[in-house]
Amino acid sequence: MPQPPDPISLPSSYNTLPYKEIRISHHPPSSPTPTPIVILELYRPQKYNAFTGTMMSELESAFQLFDLDDRVKCIILTGHGRMFCAGADLDTGFKGGEEKINDHRDGGGRVALAIHHCRKPTIAALNGSAVGVGITMTLPCALRIAAASAKIGFVFARRGLVMEACSSFFLPRLIGWSRALRVVTTGATYRADAEEVWGGLFAETMREEGVNGEAVVRRAVRVAEEVVANTSVVSTALMRELMWRNPGTAEGTHLLDSRILYEMFSSADNKEGVKAFLEKRPVNFTGTMEQDAPAAYPWWNAIDISSKAKAAGSKSKL
Amino acid sequence: MPQPPDPISLPSSYNTLPYKEIRISHHPPSSPTPTPIVILELYRPQKYNAFTGTMMSELESAFQLFDLDDRVKCIILTGHGRMFCAGADLDTGFKGGEEKINDHRDGGGRVALAIHHCRKPTIAALNGSAVGVGITMTLPCALRIAAASAKIGFVFARRGLVMEACSSFFLPRLIGWSRALRVVTTGATYRADAEEVWGGLFAETMREEGVNGEAVVRRAVRVAEEVVANTSVVSTALMRELMWRNPGTAEGTHLLDSRILYEMFSSADNKEGVKAFLEKRPVNFTGTMEQDAPAAYPWWNAIDISSKAKAAGSKSKL
Amino acid sequence: MPQPPDPISLPSSYNTLPYKEIRISHHPPSSPTPTPIVILELYRPQKYNAFTGTMMSELESAFQLFDLDDRVKCIILTGHGRMFCAGADLDTGFKGGEEKINDHRDGGGRVALAIHHCRKPTIAALNGSAVGVGITMTLPCALRIAAASAKIGFVFARRGLVMEACSSFFLPRLIGWSRALRVVTTGATYRADAEEVWGGLFAETMREEGVNGEAVVRRAVRVAEEVVANTSVVSTALMRELMWRNPGTAEGTHLLDSRILYEMFSSADNKEGVKAFLEKRPVNFTGTMEQDAPAAYPWWNAIDISSKAKAAGSKSKL
Repeated sequence: MPQPPDPISLPSSYNTLPYKEIRISHHPPSSPTPTPIVILELYRPQKYNAFTGTMMSELESAFQLFDLDDRVKCIILTGHGRMFCAGADLDTGFKGGEEKINDHRDGGGRVALAIHHCRKPTIAALNGSAVGVGITMTLPCALRIAAASAKIGFVFARRGLVMEACSSFFLPRLIGWSRALRVVTTGATYRADAEEVWGGLFAETMREEGVNGEAVVRRAVRVAEEVVANTSVVSTALMRELMWRNPGTAEGTHLLDSRILYEMFSSADNKEGVKAFLEKRPVNFTGTMEQDAPAAYPWWNAIDISSKAKAAGSKSKL
Repeated sequence: MPQPPDPISLPSSYNTLPYKEIRISHHPPSSPTPTPIVILELYRPQKYNAFTGTMMSELESAFQLFDLDDRVKCIILTGHGRMFCAGADLDTGFKGGEEKINDHRDGGGRVALAIHHCRKPTIAALNGSAVGVGITMTLPCALRIAAASAKIGFVFARRGLVMEACSSFFLPRLIGWSRALRVVTTGATYRADAEEVWGGLFAETMREEGVNGEAVVRRAVRVAEEVVANTSVVSTALMRELMWRNPGTAEGTHLLDSRILYEMFSSADNKEGVKAFLEKRPVNFTGTMEQDAPAAYPWWNAIDISSKAKAAGSKSKL
Repeated sequence: MPQPPDPISLPSSYNTLPYKEIRISHHPPSSPTPTPIVILELYRPQKYNAFTGTMMSELESAFQLFDLDDRVKCIILTGHGRMFCAGADLDTGFKGGEEKINDHRDGGGRVALAIHHCRKPTIAALNGSAVGVGITMTLPCALRIAAASAKIGFVFARRGLVMEACSSFFLPRLIGWSRALRVVTTGATYRADAEEVWGGLFAETMREEGVNGEAVVRRAVRVAEEVVANTSVVSTALMRELMWRNPGTAEGTHLLDSRILYEMFSSADNKEGVKAFLEKRPVNFTGTMEQDAPAAYPWWNAIDISSKAKAAGSKSKL
């Protein structure tokens, strides 16, 4: 049986958490307590933020906190320095020998799922280049903003590997199978502003990037501010799930969204949204998924992704 | 048990049907009897064609007639005046309190499904802006043509709601999850000609729009004329179903399309299509889905979407 | 029961195989023995390479050989002369009367599946126009390069037919349902460089096409050389399957790719890929799917697509 998770205590400040390979700041940075917008930086100076087991654990931990922390409404994921992330750290090597095959859980996938499962929108701010897990970890984000000159590469075929971090699920759905097949087949890197290659993968690319991509982060903060000011967290969380966990037919979707809408019509956020619109004033949404998720949520059967290495007597199954 | 539908009597003219919030005209408008092309206008002057329960019922009724009426081969869906549709009429309020939760059927979804189930292609002519249900109702159309300056918004998160009208099924499939997630997460409006945002959602955008979008309707009529002159209604209906109700594997599709093609090789429309091509003359297709659908159609299990409120003793289920 | 396939003997040279309606050459052409890159030309001079039953059988045969032949690592599919392929040869007529309905297997689909099932990437080099099966047969390819002026048409509705060759599976996934619905509904032809129509269907379009599209083939050869020089055949084969045969959820994909990655971490190709990268030298991948596919492959249930006409006593089923 899966173990119940440890009770999670929310931090009094994200600035001071003892992470080693990521850094979290509040926005505005002067705020001592968590703000609606938090900025998470991949942080391995001199290593181009190459991905390690430590970074994986810290990212998983942080997104689990963000998911539960009602003070946080939008996350910006960026990289420290000139690159976003150079991919897996080849010096520390890949895991694979320590666990049994059915117990192995890909580290990139664990981070991708932590972002995917976080019920607040994450905006990836690709301050610089991203290859391998550097780009695949951003695919579950609600949107991506990148430096125009950032080099983006799904380089797996050039390392004798396959695409990871659930990216064979995300990538073709995000940009279509034609573009996805092209970039994984060549394994080459392409500039983020090569729209003919990426076809909408990046919501915006910034030509004036600033040193270390500050302009990209600044723009991501501006978008996050608009999202936080104007949208309901309950709405954006449910819509991401409605699209990623869609019943697969128009009719099945009609039954599902009808039921969810029916519940939302009596919600405080819907009442506030309509009232603010009619009164032509800013909205003040207070709903959270912890408190206000409709009874129909979640509507899917969860797949057990826990590694069985930790749970004695059970057998892993695909 | 679901009730058998009332027998439907086709009108002698669509011009004269007693609809209140939509208007239907023949093309050319002088024709007293239904023509291959009909133009349906959302019609609530002074209300920017905001969507109501009445409009919903009339749209459902009209598309049900078009589906069954062999005189009609292509529908143009447009809006009266300067906007296409301002979304749900917030003055009349959302429904939700009158029915039980499992009986509620979202009004936008009922219209979307009426268009989705109509076996003639519908061309949306977005003469002006469309937000909320104004844009989601167009997603099941075969194609969309829009005024370049039309503002398009999936504004649900800004009202504390979720995307409706089955749009969590349609939108990500139409333009990919990356673009879909961006527009629903921000909830902002974007110009129809922002191709970097919409990525092919609009087959064409018209810079010269004319007063009240006449140029857009004129262009949609031209496209409809080409569709009607050159294509078989049976072909376009089946291809839409083949793509929306696809078996999900290449191999399963091979078994399905092989079977349908086998039947079509002996159809009058295929014989005429090949003959006209070899003789380099215009085609004259006469097939209809009512008369000429292959025996393999429909190949999917229909999902019962009827509201159980009308059928005593039954229990609604997702 | 399905019959075991005849044992296949690989040819000493593809140049000399007795095909009538396709031609295969090695690259470089002077090589007497099969090279990593082979070029397959549709070859029906004076007929614009129109598709026939003979061409179908020869394409099926060739891709089956390429799949099994470890000397071949990348295939270029192009057309002889000014067109890529004019579609089905209407003079030879469609099949359909000779078999029973459940035994019919669409010829275009048989070729599409032969390409889809070939575990080496195929690059379509559309030297000129392609309509009907001419374009649908290229959809399972890893990428497509086309002459900018090539006319591309999904003309089925204009012949009273439906899209074939599993294209109702491939096309909407490759470029999204919005663009796919538009081109099949109009049935019109559009230039390959109309990116607003095709949205990434063609990885590249070449404005300088040369006589008979030589520039397109030359470019395809250059891309193939890069693919062969830099990527592992095992990687590209598995990634295509991971995307086309995806479990459909992020979590299911995590379980699947974790398992495959675990196995690949100990593979010769991964070791070589990492080593070459760290040593900043060209890679030398030697893995093949015949020898080095992970134990988790294949992870899907195969669908029996064989025509039951050949197997007595069995009943075909959809």
